[in-house]
Order: sequence, then structure tokens, then C-alpha cells
Amino acid sequence: MPAKGLQNIVVGETRHSLVEGEKGQLVFQGYEIQDLAQHAAFEEVAYLLWYGQKPSAEQGHALRAEMAQHRSLPSGVINVLRALPEFTEPMDALRTGVSALGAVNPGTNIDLAHAVSLTAQVASLIAVFHRLRHGLEIIPPREDLDHGSNYLYMITGSEPTAAQRAMMNVYLVLLADHGMNASTFTARVIASTGSDLYSAVTGAIGALKGPLHGGAPRKVLDMLDAIGTAENAETWIRDALARKERLMGFGHRVYKTTDPRAEILRETARTYSEPAFFRLAQTVEERALEILHEKKPDQRLYTNVEFFSAAVMHAVGLPRDLFTATFAASRTAGWTAHILEQAADNRLIRPDVDYVGPTGLKWNAA
Amino acid sequence: MPAKGLQNIVVGETRHSLVEGEKGQLVFQGYEIQDLAQHAAFEEVAYLLWYGQKPSAEQGHALRAEMAQHRSLPSGVINVLRALPEFTEPMDALRTGVSALGAVNPGTNIDLAHAVSLTAQVASLIAVFHRLRHGLEIIPPREDLDHGSNYLYMITGSEPTAAQRAMMNVYLVLLADHGMNASTFTARVIASTGSDLYSAVTGAIGALKGPLHGGAPRKVLDMLDAIGTAENAETWIRDALARKERLMGFGHRVYKTTDPRAEILRETARTYSEPAFFRLAQTVEERALEILHEKKPDQRLYTNVEFFSAAVMHAVGLPRDLFTATFAASRTAGWTAHILEQAADNRLIRPDVDYVGPTGLKWNAA
Repeated sequence: MPAKGLQNIVVGETRHSLVEGEKGQLVFQGYEIQDLAQHAAFEEVAYLLWYGQKPSAEQGHALRAEMAQHRSLPSGVINVLRALPEFTEPMDALRTGVSALGAVNPGTNIDLAHAVSLTAQVASLIAVFHRLRHGLEIIPPREDLDHGSNYLYMITGSEPTAAQRAMMNVYLVLLADHGMNASTFTARVIASTGSDLYSAVTGAIGALKGPLHGGAPRKVLDMLDAIGTAENAETWIRDALARKERLMGFGHRVYKTTDPRAEILRETARTYSEPAFFRLAQTVEERALEILHEKKPDQRLYTNVEFFSAAVMHAVGLPRDLFTATFAASRTAGWTAHILEQAADNRLIRPDVDYVGPTGLKWNAA
Repeated sequence: MPAKGLQNIVVGETRHSLVEGEKGQLVFQGYEIQDLAQHAAFEEVAYLLWYGQKPSAEQGHALRAEMAQHRSLPSGVINVLRALPEFTEPMDALRTGVSALGAVNPGTNIDLAHAVSLTAQVASLIAVFHRLRHGLEIIPPREDLDHGSNYLYMITGSEPTAAQRAMMNVYLVLLADHGMNASTFTARVIASTGSDLYSAVTGAIGALKGPLHGGAPRKVLDMLDAIGTAENAETWIRDALARKERLMGFGHRVYKTTDPRAEILRETARTYSEPAFFRLAQTVEERALEILHEKKPDQRLYTNVEFFSAAVMHAVGLPRDLFTATFAASRTAGWTAHILEQAADNRLIRPDVDYVGPTGLKWNAA
């Protein structure tokens, strides 16, 4: 039997993250995700993934400074973004922009220095494209701001509030890595051919875009908008399920309990969201879980990371069509860490396939 | 034990191609590759892969006309290519160009119409970028030419000779598909997330670029240049192996005998190459195989597709830095056929991974 979807097929080893789906546990390089969300800055988590250990205060500052120095984009890459139509989807612009960064860096090896600069530049690509598509001036990066704050600053032109900074950092920390997910796996397959860092991340962005992977959070917000009020939740959900629609934000291939990131993001949203919006989100979550368990008692459907990702990014003030791109801005740290790990002990990733087509045909048969 | 590299792990089923590595056999949708190379046009093989059957004369003409109509590139995409520096590697330009085509086609489904238009446009992207990087005028496509001839025409501005047409067609036919190779697998992983056709092909281009996959043919030609004459072959090869260098064009993950495509391309090169060049290539092949079998008697190293691909593309007159991009122009037919097959019966491709990092660490340990 083919291992369709490769479920439970172990493709290799990693030191970056441990996903315990039954326990609802997520660990980056030895640290529980709850610990990191509470105490670490995104740059420190990126350091942890890239170097395999927690940075000292000095090492953390040095990495933050290195990332800050690489936030500007080459003019050729900005011109590529300018050439795209204003209706371009942000993930398509980001994929094209990262590919263009690869074009202006020919012959790049897979190395840590480019992992750092690319992670800095992915945030800039999103922000610059967002400004261009709205006919707004590009905001130059500010080296004094941390990664997440600078990202918001380059999008809006204003310094983010303390609440926005806190939410942005928690989000970026939580999403930075997640085992052998489909986009990370894509990046590793591309790297396994001996290709370059930019090709691997470009491919990963294309994979993350899919609605079965990173493309769902905006649909959660669309759903919350459609429901409108907490009082409306139960009727709306029952009607949607009766129409065989899929509820967005529930269920995951790996987690058979609540995603630990969802719990942290729920508390983040509780702290910072407008109370009416949080009440809506929480009521929809509660009713959805009750009704899903009632209708599908044999399936273990729990809240996944997308549900409260949408709530937190909405509270930060990001437009919903930047949600998946913002996910990519965080995950670039994990993607590049995995690409480095693949290159350090490489073997071409090339599975087999069963041929089920015809045989013995002749092109010019009589 | 992890299935590192996924060797012998069957990821699914396909109707597109059968690769029998022990027998040296390659079949597309029931037809032996030798049969197709002798009798079929590239457009007919693309039809075979996309529709699962040989086209009638009328169906073949209709597909050829449909592809010809889609050869022009949108102006936004040409502007993206213009924004790239002239030193950009053609594969980086192609990856960026396909991504930009996705940007100007937002919300594209995975469908046959876009598979056809993208396959037509990939050839145009390579040719247009080649003209731009040399400061030459873009040559508009000609609808009266077949796919391979138009590709050469858009690169050079001259109609290809009969010999060039014949070589180009054989090359495009042979390379159009090849089981679950790393770039095709990349495309299917990306498509499995529900992402779009352009994202999947963009990722595949990045994977094909790697020297362990499609990046090798130009290195074969560099090696032949370095060897210089047939008389020099044995000494050069022994010296290279003594320096632990890898000979380009020999060995394959799947084939344990001569790649059938290599045999067809050898005969194509024999027919059309300059005699001195063919004698050099053939002598290098013979000496290399003798010496490899003498030095590594336990390994089954045979001539792979890259060796005579390089000879044929050189005889066609393509510059060596377009070899891998020309491979992509052919393989786009297979990639898109696999993406359609993945989307028709999809399951997210997400393997597992063994965590071998630390556990139980505390960020603020005392």
C-alpha cells in the first residue's frame, strides 16, 4: 500500500522542534513553547533555532543588530514588486520577492548569514509590497526597533503600541517552527537537490499559501464576521454544518487535543482584544467544539492554531490578507533552520511511486 | 530507522510514467520512450500526459494551436524580468518569472487550461530573459512554429534548421516526465496543501536547479571542454578521480543500467553533432565507464541522461547556462500533469520526523 500523504513515515531527524500531538506539547530545541512565549523575543527564538542554543544577552543583541542591518531591500527587488499589479495577493508577491532576492544573490550557498538576512528581508518584502499596492510611500526600516515592531512600523508608518508589540512578538515566537510540516518539508526537499536557500524558501512560501496549511486564518476572520454576534453562533454553526461546510480553525493532522499555541493565543487575545470581539471568538470556539463533538463523536477535533491566530492578528491591526504572509515572516526562521540542517547532512529526498497506467501501447499501432 | 531520502517509500500512485531502473525502461502512459522519441512531437507527448491518451491528428493540432496562442507574456511579467540584474542566473529568472505569472493570475485553480498556458509561457520566459540580459530586442513568438522551434526562434531570432528542430523535439519529448523525481515531488507536496499551479511549478524549478537533480548538464560540457580532446580523456579522468572529483553524467538513484534516454540522446548526438565533438563525448563516456567499473566494482555506475543532454543541447546551439532552464521547459509538461493528478485525489503530504534535540530546558533557569 502506498504511504499516501506520508503520514507516520519518518523522513529523518531534527533538533529544531518536537510536536507531541497526543499530549498537545510543542518544544523548540528543548524549551516548551509556553516558556518561550512568555520569556523570549522572536530574535532570541530565531537564534535558538539557528544556533541550537539560547543566546547570551550579548549574542541576542548581536543577532538583533545583524537582522536590523539587513532590513533594506535591493532596488532591483523593489522594482520587481513595483512591476506586480496592485491586485496581487500578498503571498504571490512575497513568493516573487524572495525569488527575486535569490536572483540578485547568485551562487548563494546555504549558510547562516543568508538565513539571517533573508528572515529580516521577508518582513520588509511584505511591508514594502503592502505600501506599494496602496500607492503609499515606502517606509524605510528603523534599526532601533525589534523585528516585529519594525514590521508593523514599515506597514503603517507609526510606532506600534506596547500591546501591539507584545501580541506581534508572541505570534512570531509561536509560529517560528513546527516539526516536518508541509512547507518545511518542501524547503528540505528543494535543499536536498543541492539547490539554494532562496529556492527552498520560495517553494515553502508556495506550500504555506495552501488552505490546508497556512492559508486558513483569514477564513477564520471571515467566518467570525459572518457570524457577527456571540448570540448568533450556535445557529450559524449548525446551519453551516448542515450545508456540509467546514468550520475554519478546528482539527489538525498531528494534534489530537488542543494545539498549545491556540491556548497561548487565546489568552493573548483575551488580554488585548476588544471585549466584544473576544467574546464573539470565544463563544464561537465553545459552540463549535460542542457541536463538532456532538455531530462527529468519533473524530478528535480541537481548536487549532489558526483560530486564535486570526483573532490576535486582527487585534494587532493587520489586514486579513496579510495574515498568511505574516505567518511566513515568522516561519522563515524555522524554514531556514531546517534548510541548514538538511544541507549539513544531506541525502536527496526522492520517494518512489506506484505506476498504475497502461503498458504495452504502440504510438503507430495498426 | 528514519527513511532518509525516502528511498523505496511509495508516496502514491501515478498514471504518467513508469521508471524501471533495473531494466533501463521508461514508459509514458503506456508508450515506451523509444517509441515516443521516434514518432511523437513534444505537444503530442504533453497531450498524452495531460489527457492520458494519444491525441488524434485533430486533437494534436488543437493543442498545438492552444499552446501557440499562449506564448506571449503579460507586460507586468516582462517588467519583472526587466527589473532583474543582467547577471541573474536563468533558473533564478525563470523561477521569478513563473512566480510573477502566478501573481498576475490570482485565484487560479489547478486546471488543464493553466497547465497548457504555463507550459507555453515557460519557454517564452527563458527566451525573453535571455534577450533582455544581452540587451537584445524581445522576439515576438510565431504561432506557425512548433513549441521547440518557436523556443529557439525566440532565443535567436532565426528559424531553426531541420537538424535543430529534430534535436530540440527529441530532447523535449525525452525529458517531459520521469516518475516521482525530486522536482515533481516538490510540485506535488506544494499542490497537496491546496495551493495553486504557479506556486507548485515555482517550487519545482527551485528543486530542479540543484546539482543533484537538473543542475548537472552544463557541468558535463565544462568537463568535456576541460578534457579538450579524445586522446586526453583517460589521463584526465584518472587524475580527476585521484583528486576525489565526481565525474559528471554518470550514476542515478533509480537506474542501475544505462538510462534509456541517454542511449537515444547518444544516437541523436551521433547524427547531428560535429564529428570531432561527438568523438570526444563518446570517448569520454567509454573511458569513464571503464575506469569507474575498475575503481568502483561494487557500484553500478552507468551513463545518465545528463551526459548526452549536454551534447545535444550544445549541438542545438543553446548556451550552456540555458541547459537546466531548457530541461524545465520540457518538464513543465510533466510537473503540471502530476499537479493535476495530485489535485484530483488529494491528501496533504506531511511526513513525520524524529526529534533528536534536547528536552526539559528552562529559558530562565536559575
